[in-house]
Amino acid sequence: MNVDGKPERTIRVAADGAGVEIIDQTQLPFAFVRRRLGNLEETAEAISAMRVRGAPLIGVAAAYGLALAMRDDPSEAGVSAACQRLMATRPTAVNLRWALGRVRASVRGLPEGERAQRAWARAGELADADVVTCRALAEHGLRLLEKRAAERRDGGPLQVLTHCNAGWLATVDWGTALAPLYLAHDSGLPVHVWVDETRPRNQGASLTAWELAQHGVPHTLVADNAGGHLMQRGQVDCCLVGTDRTTAAGDVCNKIGTYLKALAARDNGVPFYAAVPSASIDWSIGCAGDVPIEERDADELTRVAGRSADGRMMEVSLVPDGTRVANPAFDVTPARLVSALITERGVCDASPEGLERLFPAQAR
Amino acid sequence: MNVDGKPERTIRVAADGAGVEIIDQTQLPFAFVRRRLGNLEETAEAISAMRVRGAPLIGVAAAYGLALAMRDDPSEAGVSAACQRLMATRPTAVNLRWALGRVRASVRGLPEGERAQRAWARAGELADADVVTCRALAEHGLRLLEKRAAERRDGGPLQVLTHCNAGWLATVDWGTALAPLYLAHDSGLPVHVWVDETRPRNQGASLTAWELAQHGVPHTLVADNAGGHLMQRGQVDCCLVGTDRTTAAGDVCNKIGTYLKALAARDNGVPFYAAVPSASIDWSIGCAGDVPIEERDADELTRVAGRSADGRMMEVSLVPDGTRVANPAFDVTPARLVSALITERGVCDASPEGLERLFPAQAR
Repeated sequence: MNVDGKPERTIRVAADGAGVEIIDQTQLPFAFVRRRLGNLEETAEAISAMRVRGAPLIGVAAAYGLALAMRDDPSEAGVSAACQRLMATRPTAVNLRWALGRVRASVRGLPEGERAQRAWARAGELADADVVTCRALAEHGLRLLEKRAAERRDGGPLQVLTHCNAGWLATVDWGTALAPLYLAHDSGLPVHVWVDETRPRNQGASLTAWELAQHGVPHTLVADNAGGHLMQRGQVDCCLVGTDRTTAAGDVCNKIGTYLKALAARDNGVPFYAAVPSASIDWSIGCAGDVPIEERDADELTRVAGRSADGRMMEVSLVPDGTRVANPAFDVTPARLVSALITERGVCDASPEGLERLFPAQAR
Repeated sequence: MNVDGKPERTIRVAADGAGVEIIDQTQLPFAFVRRRLGNLEETAEAISAMRVRGAPLIGVAAAYGLALAMRDDPSEAGVSAACQRLMATRPTAVNLRWALGRVRASVRGLPEGERAQRAWARAGELADADVVTCRALAEHGLRLLEKRAAERRDGGPLQVLTHCNAGWLATVDWGTALAPLYLAHDSGLPVHVWVDETRPRNQGASLTAWELAQHGVPHTLVADNAGGHLMQRGQVDCCLVGTDRTTAAGDVCNKIGTYLKALAARDNGVPFYAAVPSASIDWSIGCAGDVPIEERDADELTRVAGRSADGRMMEVSLVPDGTRVANPAFDVTPARLVSALITERGVCDASPEGLERLFPAQAR
């Protein structure tokens, strides 16, 4: 998607081929800064510190990280240690495991001297495949949006509420939940996006609002608390969110607070869609309660980063030191509250049968 | 309730009798500062800027403001203008209208020279009555909490989730939603309070967490987004919130986001209670959609005040200037989602019949 009128991707191979360049997302929305990752540790740090975030992008970044690790130590022990290091960065995102598995499989049986090069190529393939996946998902999602738009009587823009950031910043390009919205906008279907702030890390305010603005998509920032009220007052035509992990039963694990919006959507007859690239599906988990929920640092809630009046980036504390805080990073929206899943293979019910139809066990 | 071990009220007559002293709540939780209000304008500014906030406290502050206005201009025209000025400060809080009506009625027919003194005395009566009301509400609420506590099998503290600040800082003393919790704590029933941050103004983080800490009540701060997840995981025994205006049908208008918590409570079988002093009931409104919802300034969402690393209070911007924002301050939780209303006259169903039983039309 565009930044300042110029197409960009979130991750790209550096000109010298010795590393990758990411967008340091912790510096958005005030600064658009590329950062170089040249080895395993730099990659792991970038994922842990959420310089790169979003399940699909985490997967691709980890794939490159594993390939970089093989340049230093291509032995079996080295590869295992690198996978463990990367897996520990973010416990909820299933794409991480998926991507590492793909890279690892690609070097199985290869002489150690050939591994790094093969893994690097495989990471690049995963990056390109992510773009293809997101674009396919966008096409399927667009058809749903067109249906919702046809139901509007006033011809006004389609009103879509999203939570957190499932835009192109969360992937290599296009995004997941935002992909159909970019495609709608580009193809002349007017949309307006309600952007949840997404506390505690404010990904909606700092990432989603930023990327929509850069690409020219109309949007309005609201507090996470406001979505229910907007739906009560008929100001939302549908909700569209991403996922960090979706179970085989269609339960959608996504950023904390997603479940509350799904409840409000159900209570007000508003369709609730989740954009689910198949790499985010955890076929091994059937029960929502079994999804591990990452508990993140209290500082995320108690300290807020922003720009001071004199233009410096700084952090302020909201509460005195010692305030006890809980900070679960995700919740699980049960399948019964999800109107449909949008995948790269099409749209399906949020159910074992719906997913099985698009992704039969033998063709996953 | 206690601050630093010493009992305090949110508003008190200044030693010289020429004004009132409030706690400037915009400076909490980092500084406990009293501020003097000596005339109408200072009072109106304190309400608009939310130096005093919370429906019951707004009512009492406005009553004093009207009395102060009469010292300058006790004419009918002057009293009307003062009422209009004060009414315009916060359109949603029904207590404001209620308190101004009470003070106005007290001076009806009095010679202009006697009005200011009478109004001042009436404002003092309203302040004292608010304490009595909150204390009575606390007793009725405590009985509900005792029932919930008896259902816990493990003997652990009763887990209560609250939203925004309906504590003693929102009233003259005791509070509304927090009043039963203070009484429970003081009487040896162990409670633990989940405190919603309450974006965009962070009243939970800066006021509720602060006052619970000052009084020694165990609590944990969470993002507004977290409540649904906590309820899904069985970590909430009941929700207990305040109200800015409750309709005759039992619909509860309260801080934006309350409705989302009520939906989660219903979905997880968690009782959802609203603490409703009768002055917050708007007998003239039967339909939830008719409650006027205050739309507040975008800055509340886009700028966050806090303490910098070097100890200064400052504000940071979360998004670039020009980001479009919507900021509805309240939502309405329909009566069907409210398990019970806790009033100073007892507990009732959230229904016209429930309210009518406690407050028959002839005895309101």
